[in-house]
Amino acid sequence: MSTKDRITGVLSPVVTPFKADLSPDPERFVRQCRWLLSQDVGLAVFGTNSEANSLSTDEKVDLLDRLVGAGVDARRMMPGTGCCALTDSVRLTAHAMKLGCGGALMLPPFYYKGVSDDGLFKNFAEVIERVGDRRLRIYLYHIPPVSQVPITVALIERLLKTYPGIVAGAKDSSGDWNNTKAYLDNFAKHGFDVFPGSETFLLQGMRGGGVGCISATANVNPGAIARLFATWNVGRAADADTQQERLNEIRGIFAKYPMIPALKAAIAHYGGDTSWATVRPPLVELTREQKAALATDLDSAGFTMPGLTG
Amino acid sequence: MSTKDRITGVLSPVVTPFKADLSPDPERFVRQCRWLLSQDVGLAVFGTNSEANSLSTDEKVDLLDRLVGAGVDARRMMPGTGCCALTDSVRLTAHAMKLGCGGALMLPPFYYKGVSDDGLFKNFAEVIERVGDRRLRIYLYHIPPVSQVPITVALIERLLKTYPGIVAGAKDSSGDWNNTKAYLDNFAKHGFDVFPGSETFLLQGMRGGGVGCISATANVNPGAIARLFATWNVGRAADADTQQERLNEIRGIFAKYPMIPALKAAIAHYGGDTSWATVRPPLVELTREQKAALATDLDSAGFTMPGLTG
Repeated sequence: MSTKDRITGVLSPVVTPFKADLSPDPERFVRQCRWLLSQDVGLAVFGTNSEANSLSTDEKVDLLDRLVGAGVDARRMMPGTGCCALTDSVRLTAHAMKLGCGGALMLPPFYYKGVSDDGLFKNFAEVIERVGDRRLRIYLYHIPPVSQVPITVALIERLLKTYPGIVAGAKDSSGDWNNTKAYLDNFAKHGFDVFPGSETFLLQGMRGGGVGCISATANVNPGAIARLFATWNVGRAADADTQQERLNEIRGIFAKYPMIPALKAAIAHYGGDTSWATVRPPLVELTREQKAALATDLDSAGFTMPGLTG
Repeated sequence: MSTKDRITGVLSPVVTPFKADLSPDPERFVRQCRWLLSQDVGLAVFGTNSEANSLSTDEKVDLLDRLVGAGVDARRMMPGTGCCALTDSVRLTAHAMKLGCGGALMLPPFYYKGVSDDGLFKNFAEVIERVGDRRLRIYLYHIPPVSQVPITVALIERLLKTYPGIVAGAKDSSGDWNNTKAYLDNFAKHGFDVFPGSETFLLQGMRGGGVGCISATANVNPGAIARLFATWNVGRAADADTQQERLNEIRGIFAKYPMIPALKAAIAHYGGDTSWATVRPPLVELTREQKAALATDLDSAGFTMPGLTG
């Protein structure tokens, strides 16, 4: 099965803007997605950093419709469609396919803990069978620090054997290079595309056969992350390690704060739109002091968000 | 604020029957709820044991409508309405109130881990404010082994102070008596009703000021559990400890198996309806061998499910 049409490169789990009443703001969402595309970064909307699980399925369907309706290229989208409820996962995944999305990033059902690979296989198999579309490209989402439900090598092996081509890859947000390496070593040659969940592993990942990254901080530092991907892929970029160090420096600043509120605070700051800082519970905004400290840290590091208009 | 109209006693997190295509089966659900009420057990539908988080919000709204439409008494219902998405929690809770449910059992949003009490307070406060119904009775659902997001004493204190009467109690499924005791000691005298999450703590709970229990095994052993509650409340039941021991014996048999599939297998066996064993992924049915062993264990212990018709 051809993997030429696959999404690769750097994707952003796009943060979701909320209005004062905590409803999603489609206009600012479209604007943000357009800005990310202008930086050569794809759209992993409805990820962990998107507060996707804090949105209802109706809200996600509506936001996706609004993006596509606004002319944003669905082929550059890899929406998160894995929910706790099979019926929600099927509905969202089918909708994403109908709109022509390049892929679907799927969390395992994450309420029950200690579930078996048999149960997880059944979950993904039911989604694939019910969606029933050979164009479907599923990316498995491994983020045990949050979901607490791992995507094991054994599960991937079984899924890849049963649904080659449809099971197209994984995002590895374990933060554990050994796990990323296990995915790469076992599956990268079998049409399975591995995206580390942070740009701190971008270069290491590409050197090991990875195809990019899907990273929180691609929301705020998209251009520089995409540049490392692009230049490395054209002649292995002599300055790749220097680029990687600079990416890590910026990432390190954000990592000093709760990540999602910090991403939104940075967009609010550099875009001149304070309402971007709004999050849905159970998250909380950075405090005024944290926002000021983050801005100072970023300014001191010479950080900018070129082209962002809020 | 009066607590006389409150739900007390034994409640069952009612297991949800599925058809072969994994859609919920309203007819068998109504029948099961009627049987539980006939055993003097209330209906904590949409709990952990109900596979509630494996159902979409639409499916839950529909099942609740079907129950009430069939004439099942909404005042005996405490549906689980706490979701990851604020909008889902508000919609379900408002719907439960509209139907006249006696209370709502609320999980905290459970995707993000390590969230602050500030964020959790905001979540529950938003639900309460948006539902905007003084008849609302919220029971906080503490089940850290599954949700991984605890309901702390400090959070309860803050909610109880801000929303007295509306914040009506908690289900404690920590399995940690010290936590149940902390809830009881701090709040039982302030109109806060504590339900241990297992009948193994029923007697101990009542002795400490608890008002009943909400327990998985109330799905299968409702009459005996309700009898301990009823007889203890009329003259402290001289044989209370003996009753408790017998409850523990039956619970112990179920605890040897994955709980939810085991509950469904027992209903399938004693109700003569094999399709009751169906679960949604990520759970898996007991194997044929496990089902046979469970039935043998239960039969040997003289266990029955009187009046169950499947």
